[in-house]
Amino acid sequence: MITKITRLFNIQHPIIQAGMVWVSGWKLASAVSNCGGLGLIGSGSMKPELLREHIQKCKASTDKPFGVNIPLLRGDADELVRVTIDEGVKIVFTSAGHPKKYSALLKENQIKLVHVVPNIKYGLKAQEAGCDAVVGEGVEAGGHNGADQLTTFALIPQLVDALDIPVIAAGGITDGRGILAALSLGAEGVQIGTRFAATIESSAHENYKKKIVGSGDVDTVLAFRKIGLVRMMKNDFALRSVKAEFEGWNENELKELRGTKREQLGIFEGDENEGAMEAGQGVGLIKDIPNVKELFERLLFEYESALKRLPTP
Amino acid sequence: MITKITRLFNIQHPIIQAGMVWVSGWKLASAVSNCGGLGLIGSGSMKPELLREHIQKCKASTDKPFGVNIPLLRGDADELVRVTIDEGVKIVFTSAGHPKKYSALLKENQIKLVHVVPNIKYGLKAQEAGCDAVVGEGVEAGGHNGADQLTTFALIPQLVDALDIPVIAAGGITDGRGILAALSLGAEGVQIGTRFAATIESSAHENYKKKIVGSGDVDTVLAFRKIGLVRMMKNDFALRSVKAEFEGWNENELKELRGTKREQLGIFEGDENEGAMEAGQGVGLIKDIPNVKELFERLLFEYESALKRLPTP
Repeated sequence: MITKITRLFNIQHPIIQAGMVWVSGWKLASAVSNCGGLGLIGSGSMKPELLREHIQKCKASTDKPFGVNIPLLRGDADELVRVTIDEGVKIVFTSAGHPKKYSALLKENQIKLVHVVPNIKYGLKAQEAGCDAVVGEGVEAGGHNGADQLTTFALIPQLVDALDIPVIAAGGITDGRGILAALSLGAEGVQIGTRFAATIESSAHENYKKKIVGSGDVDTVLAFRKIGLVRMMKNDFALRSVKAEFEGWNENELKELRGTKREQLGIFEGDENEGAMEAGQGVGLIKDIPNVKELFERLLFEYESALKRLPTP
Repeated sequence: MITKITRLFNIQHPIIQAGMVWVSGWKLASAVSNCGGLGLIGSGSMKPELLREHIQKCKASTDKPFGVNIPLLRGDADELVRVTIDEGVKIVFTSAGHPKKYSALLKENQIKLVHVVPNIKYGLKAQEAGCDAVVGEGVEAGGHNGADQLTTFALIPQLVDALDIPVIAAGGITDGRGILAALSLGAEGVQIGTRFAATIESSAHENYKKKIVGSGDVDTVLAFRKIGLVRMMKNDFALRSVKAEFEGWNENELKELRGTKREQLGIFEGDENEGAMEAGQGVGLIKDIPNVKELFERLLFEYESALKRLPTP
């Protein structure tokens, strides 16, 4: 499968594993890269020195390209960027902020830069900032989402038409059918999160992985519209958050309810009631916890099967 | 393009034009059917005798199959069903209610029955009620939406896996790329709304059609979560509705704000400020108001082009 994205990153398949807090350390990222996709270390839950350790272990575990995801809203984003450059990583995905602040520095260091965007306006900004590609992320994705709530189906073709740089689709992509659908919409690659979170190599807590496997089509909710949208699986905390919003709580009350450690509590510590168990709407399609190699083979098989089924006019 | 849906309805292309209030009368439905798709008369904005007139004019304008969409929540749904049977229509799409009430009667009259569903639970109910297919409608669709807010990308493959009857995808499908993506996800056909609303043959007001053409990616909102979700284009009424929800208005206050004639005011009378200008998130892809024949040729061309671009492993 050759696309602009496989050529950009010099990878075999246009399948990127999303950088996810508490989920994607060196084990997951190197496993994905070893299968011919692009693994991303999610630095969002790491201090700079822990990121350095993950990068070093990842380099020791694969000689294929891999990258680092850096959420730019982090107070220590400067340091995360510095560590990434120091360690010779050549692919950076940024999110939650404006990539312009770092694009010149990253480019000087021959780093390919991709920014995650929820609409055309931010896509154009990323392009102007010199990004090599964007990830267009639909509101079906787990975790943080854009306020406009554009879905993958609506967002991707509009981004493709508006931009000159390639678009990677994210949000709701869970199996080979989803990969084929994303490429049909004009994407040059896909970024998959939740499906990779429920693999052996994912560093998430077992309770979190099992909750993904046990969840059905309507088992995620979108909460915190007023203070920053998050999609997560239904549990006590998630349902209380939705109810609070319905009741018209103000921003301060909602921020207090949300707290600052909910992702760690849910995804890393496995608290099924009070943690933020972030996941996308595709959870209902996830029925097991395979290793990355099995999953990759399955994704490619499903892609080919779906491609063969398409009717020709 | 042969699929289970083209065989079910004996049509040439698996492209169904959604039954839309104030938009899809006999002119639009017969034009779509004459192009080899399936046109649907939207009875939601018609009294029974007006529906009869539209069916008769549609029969006079095409000898191809066409259908009627009946929203089951209507107080006079019984009469709409009776008129449809009387006039010999052989395809009925139902929405907003439980199809079981009418399925035996419709089946006795050799009518193919399709129900619109937003999740697996209602899909299974429709299948048990004897429906021949379902429309799975994602939250990117214009107009009324399911409370779970499943997107097309997440909903369609989950429905396909859960049901034995064929699934038609709806929500955000606006061009040939979208058709290809929907079939990639496992759908056997597509139902397209907003794109057909902005055609010459659509009976909507010119102001409404022009607003679709002038709207971009982030120009629709989802309002009235508490009393029944609706997606519409941003205007004074829509933004006021969203603000009211943020402020925590109660159900009665919201119902009063919504009123009962907003769709007529917006779509039929063309009130750009105070009407409900219902439309899907694909509006940003719509740049003109073609006739149905031109549109059909374009959709098929785009489908073929997108199919040719897909990488093979």
